[in-house]
Amino acid sequence: MRDQDQLAMTADEMNAYLDEIFPQVRGDFHVDRLAPGEITLRLKVAERHLRPGGTVSGPAMFGLADVTVYALVLGMIGRVPLAVTTNASLDFLRKPEAGRDLIAEGRLLKLGRQLAVGDVLLRSEGSDAVVARAAMTYAIPPGKSRPENGVS
Amino acid sequence: MRDQDQLAMTADEMNAYLDEIFPQVRGDFHVDRLAPGEITLRLKVAERHLRPGGTVSGPAMFGLADVTVYALVLGMIGRVPLAVTTNASLDFLRKPEAGRDLIAEGRLLKLGRQLAVGDVLLRSEGSDAVVARAAMTYAIPPGKSRPENGVS
Amino acid sequence: MRDQDQLAMTADEMNAYLDEIFPQVRGDFHVDRLAPGEITLRLKVAERHLRPGGTVSGPAMFGLADVTVYALVLGMIGRVPLAVTTNASLDFLRKPEAGRDLIAEGRLLKLGRQLAVGDVLLRSEGSDAVVARAAMTYAIPPGKSRPENGVS
Amino acid sequence: MRDQDQLAMTADEMNAYLDEIFPQVRGDFHVDRLAPGEITLRLKVAERHLRPGGTVSGPAMFGLADVTVYALVLGMIGRVPLAVTTNASLDFLRKPEAGRDLIAEGRLLKLGRQLAVGDVLLRSEGSDAVVARAAMTYAIPPGKSRPENGVS
Repeated sequence: MRDQDQLAMTADEMNAYLDEIFPQVRGDFHVDRLAPGEITLRLKVAERHLRPGGTVSGPAMFGLADVTVYALVLGMIGRVPLAVTTNASLDFLRKPEAGRDLIAEGRLLKLGRQLAVGDVLLRSEGSDAVVARAAMTYAIPPGKSRPENGVS
Repeated sequence: MRDQDQLAMTADEMNAYLDEIFPQVRGDFHVDRLAPGEITLRLKVAERHLRPGGTVSGPAMFGLADVTVYALVLGMIGRVPLAVTTNASLDFLRKPEAGRDLIAEGRLLKLGRQLAVGDVLLRSEGSDAVVARAAMTYAIPPGKSRPENGVS
Repeated sequence: MRDQDQLAMTADEMNAYLDEIFPQVRGDFHVDRLAPGEITLRLKVAERHLRPGGTVSGPAMFGLADVTVYALVLGMIGRVPLAVTTNASLDFLRKPEAGRDLIAEGRLLKLGRQLAVGDVLLRSEGSDAVVARAAMTYAIPPGKSRPENGVS
Repeated sequence: MRDQDQLAMTADEMNAYLDEIFPQVRGDFHVDRLAPGEITLRLKVAERHLRPGGTVSGPAMFGLADVTVYALVLGMIGRVPLAVTTNASLDFLRKPEAGRDLIAEGRLLKLGRQLAVGDVLLRSEGSDAVVARAAMTYAIPPGKSRPENGVS
């Protein structure tokens, strides 16, 4: 049994790890908070994330939702670089506010031996209105859970 | 603008309305709580909802998620019988516990003029473990929002 | 490697098997055609599947999509009663025509060791218009693929 | 009624239009084929679309699926720049092959006055194996359908 009340990594360790494994998007994301089963992740919105009119692009929002739940799963089970996204569903609800970071609040709904599932709400910083919601599923390679500390 | 802090119907009125518009499933569902933007709905699990092994069937869980967000939307905008489900996404996470009602906690994420979106977590009564999650979208016929009180 | 060009069961065997494992919905479904990677399944629409106005209920359409891909997966890998639905996404596009069976055309997109994914289009019999689309994912228990013929 | 057998734009016009409205991703996409209700769109895979190990990133695949159905919808109704993605569901099935373009085959399932829905299969060029599937929904602003030729 996994211990669902304990983290395998801190927020600082996760920020360093994300920069290491996703060098292409270094500087895009920042883990503001990581707790057992919960995460707050920030997209530092820059010109490259925008579409005409100043709205954040769909791929940038997808990427934020994906990294959010991925980081939450790895925060629980440790560094499992082969975990892969298998399913995503997203609703785009409102235009994000121009010139603001996007804040993702993720929560873990299931952490099984083979599959992990979490969902996410995205909001513009400082606003209560939900810009998008997403649910993401990850397949965890057999025998790869918590490889560093032997807990499975 | 819709007033998103005010209900158009009480929980009792909603229970009566659901029995009226869905006579085929009368007695299956009960609104335990209805508040602005939030609802708790119960599936009174009976033999007809089960699959071999005592698990609640997928269609019964789909139906619960669907009625949950539908009742939440109508609770906000009033009786709009032509609102229709346009999209549903569901993750089935764990087997429900045998012999227990399923409790759905729904929240409204968007209530627009044309589309309403909400999400739902399903749990077996008395348990914290999430059995399934769902997100549902409804199309609201033009001009039909809040027909009874003129607010749109 | 699984042999993706060969069936583990015929359409007749599948019809008998569905009646056996889903006694609660016996008579609802009929496999019209089963081929490697493809299936045609019919919902024999009856009063119990309808909502007021004569439309087929959402749970009945969900159930049809679910059984379609489930039967297609088992048609390929053999009788694996523990395969479970883990994810479903559906778009409801048009009202089905009254008094007609619903015909589901399913195709298998992936048949892995742990996960199988297929998608489905639902139409009213005799019509080209798509009533709903769905994609379904199933988790296959470890070591349970093709239990009867040893192929995995 | 919209004429669903006729295009509002050719493939060449669509390629020019995509470059005009999405300058940030100019050169990423190419419409190989556009026909009533069907489209083939290519992601010209470059370094910026990759993740370590040479796989195409999730956001790049999301972007490809999104542009595919968007271009198909606009190919049918003409230039409606305010059409917005409201829902997306994706299954990621296999790793794309390194060093190959990704080819998206999209088909239109519904083209209504308010909502358009299509689905997409992604494959590596020259391969039959499906890398990902997606379904996308777009909201069309009221009165904006076919603005150039008055057909609605």
